[in-house]
This record gives sequence, C-alpha cells and structure tokens, in this order.
Amino acid sequence: MEQEFASTLLENAVNELSRLPGIGRKTALRLALHILRQDKKSGRALGEAIINLREGIRYCHTCHNISEEATCPICSNPSRDRTTVCVVENVKDVMSIENTGQYRGLYHVLGGVISPMDGIGPNQLEITSLVDRVRDGKVSEVILALSATMEGDTTNFYIYRQLGTLPIKITQLARGVSIGNEIEYTDEITLGRSLLNRTLFADSFNRTLL
Amino acid sequence: MEQEFASTLLENAVNELSRLPGIGRKTALRLALHILRQDKKSGRALGEAIINLREGIRYCHTCHNISEEATCPICSNPSRDRTTVCVVENVKDVMSIENTGQYRGLYHVLGGVISPMDGIGPNQLEITSLVDRVRDGKVSEVILALSATMEGDTTNFYIYRQLGTLPIKITQLARGVSIGNEIEYTDEITLGRSLLNRTLFADSFNRTLL
Repeated sequence: MEQEFASTLLENAVNELSRLPGIGRKTALRLALHILRQDKKSGRALGEAIINLREGIRYCHTCHNISEEATCPICSNPSRDRTTVCVVENVKDVMSIENTGQYRGLYHVLGGVISPMDGIGPNQLEITSLVDRVRDGKVSEVILALSATMEGDTTNFYIYRQLGTLPIKITQLARGVSIGNEIEYTDEITLGRSLLNRTLFADSFNRTLL
Repeated sequence: MEQEFASTLLENAVNELSRLPGIGRKTALRLALHILRQDKKSGRALGEAIINLREGIRYCHTCHNISEEATCPICSNPSRDRTTVCVVENVKDVMSIENTGQYRGLYHVLGGVISPMDGIGPNQLEITSLVDRVRDGKVSEVILALSATMEGDTTNFYIYRQLGTLPIKITQLARGVSIGNEIEYTDEITLGRSLLNRTLFADSFNRTLL
C-alpha cells in the first residue's frame, strides 16, 4: 500500500518506526501522528530515551547482562550468592527470573541458544566465557534455565558436556505441568516427564519459598 | 506488574515507549530490547526521526495540514482545483482521500469534530478560518468529509449553518453500502439511506474515474 506523505519528516519517522518488530506501516503512521499531537517536550523525551538507551547501555563483563557499568548491579551486589550461576538465553529471562523473587544467585547470559537452522553455533554464544568463569571461580552449582525446546535441550547438553569434567553440580529447571494448567490439556511428553519426576506431596509446602 | 530493571536507561526508554497508544509495558520492553540488539546507527536514526518529526513539522497556514513550509505541497500545487475545498477531521483523512486518487481540489483540516462529551466546541476547531477562507476566496464548492457519526453530523450541520449565507455549493460524502459489504450484514440506517439516495445504475460506469 503506497502512502503519499505530505512531509519527508513524517515519511522518515514512519519508515524508522515500522522497522520495529510487530509495527507495520499503518501502526507506525498512527504512532507518528500521535507524537505530532503531543507537546514538543514529549517527542524529544521519547527520541532521546531511545538514543540514550542504545548508546549508553553496555554489557556486564562477567555475566553479559545489560548494565550501565562494567559490572552489572547483580554481579556487584555483595548479598547475592556467588556460588550459584543461572544460565539464561537473554536479558529478558534475567528479568523474568528476578521477578519471581525466588533466586539470589548470579546469572550468565548466553545471548541465544544453539540453532543450526539460524546459523547460530556454540561460538556465537557466551559458552567459553561460562566455562572459564566456572573453572576460575568458586561456583558450586550451574542451573540451566534455557527454553524447553529442541534448541534449548541441545544447548543444555552442549554446556553439560563442556562443564562435565569440573567438580560442580549441574541442574536444570523442573519440567512439569504448568501452574493453572488442566491435566486434560497438558501434552503427553510433559505429562510423562512430570510423572517420572513426581515429587513428595509434603515437600510442596516447604518449597513455596526459598 | 512490577518490573525490576537492571538499568535506568532501559527503564526510561520503556516508560517513554509505553506512553505511545496501544503499547503497553510488555511491548515497550520488547521494543527496547529489540533496539538494543540493533546497531547504534539504527537506534540513533529512530530517535532522531522522532525528534525531527515533532520539532520540524509545522502546519499549513491555509489548510492546517502538516507541512514543512508555511504553505503545504497541496495548497501550493498550481495544478490543483482551487475552487473546491474538502473539509476533513485530521491529517490522516487527507492522506486517505489523497490515496483514493479521486480528488484534485484543496483541503481544510478542522483538527477534530464538535464533541461536547470531550469538551471540544466549535472554537477549538478551525471553523472560523474555514468561513473566512470561503468568504475571501474563489471557492465554489465545500465538500463535508467528516465521519458518519453523531459528532460528525453535528459538525457538518454547524458548518452548514455558518456557510449557509455564502453563494457556494455544500456537499457531503455519499452514505451507502460499503464496497464489499453484504446486504445481510448492513445496518438498517445505512440500508435505508442507500435506498433513499439510490443512483442510476448506468451512471456507475461513468463514475468509476473522475
């Protein structure tokens, strides 16, 4: 659908906005016209927030989480448990796990999972730095918290092989029926896994809080 | 839902993005993380496009369409028919009508419709400037192209009353069954109007192009 714009400034803004994921040209135009209706201060605040975000953010040297310093707030927090490292795919997963309030250890952000279809091999991910970190540090447990997909499982297994010789405990997130899900609609593989890995009912009372 | 952000830059970007219409905090976070994954040039291009849009755009002195000059490209185009003025609610409507390719006259952007519920009266709209423009100029026809809603009809009627004494033709967009709509699902008011205003079938051949 060709749109004839009255202004190259508008056209430019629509082009840039429609590069964002999930935002087509119609939505981009709606957003641009909304920005035009707001006062100049709001437009500048949005534009500058985006520029500052991209130019100001760095990545933690230790865990590769986003940060404004060389070391992120989690890695530099002295009250966190430094013997446990939780391996996640991306920055959003760190936030998700932090939001549970159930974890007080450190993280390691891989930057993705092994996916030959997308051309992502182990060398594109922060796996070597994880192995170095575990070998050099006083880490006693590595928690694999990758997606329960074929790519996640492949990556889990690769990391497991790389860390295999080190004297640490390697765990992964429990797989089972999601809270709120009905048994009738749970797939067979999940149901089978959750039967095999069934836990003592009495334990569930103690396990609600860390 | 509280989100603990690792970075105030990220938090700030999410806050600003989530002010946009239809973008909640989850989507804003997804957009911000997308921007972080792109190169710095893309982030700066998006931010600057937004700032330049809001700060660079002006409104045409004649028709109040957006413009980069004091007079917009449509008003300054010598090949447009200067005797016809199409009255629309907003800038997007100008684009919609331009996209039909069926109109070669000028526009007048009201900036909304009369809506007492939202506190918008005739004085907040560009109605006086429309009357002045029609009185002073060589306009022979005003086309009312407002929404087919109660507010649109009220505004149409108000403008009609204001222009009533001037020797011009005042028309409005045809109301009828939308192209592609089935009769079964057309509401009774539209169907009644389209019966009353039925047109000669043979005319439809001639009317496909202006």
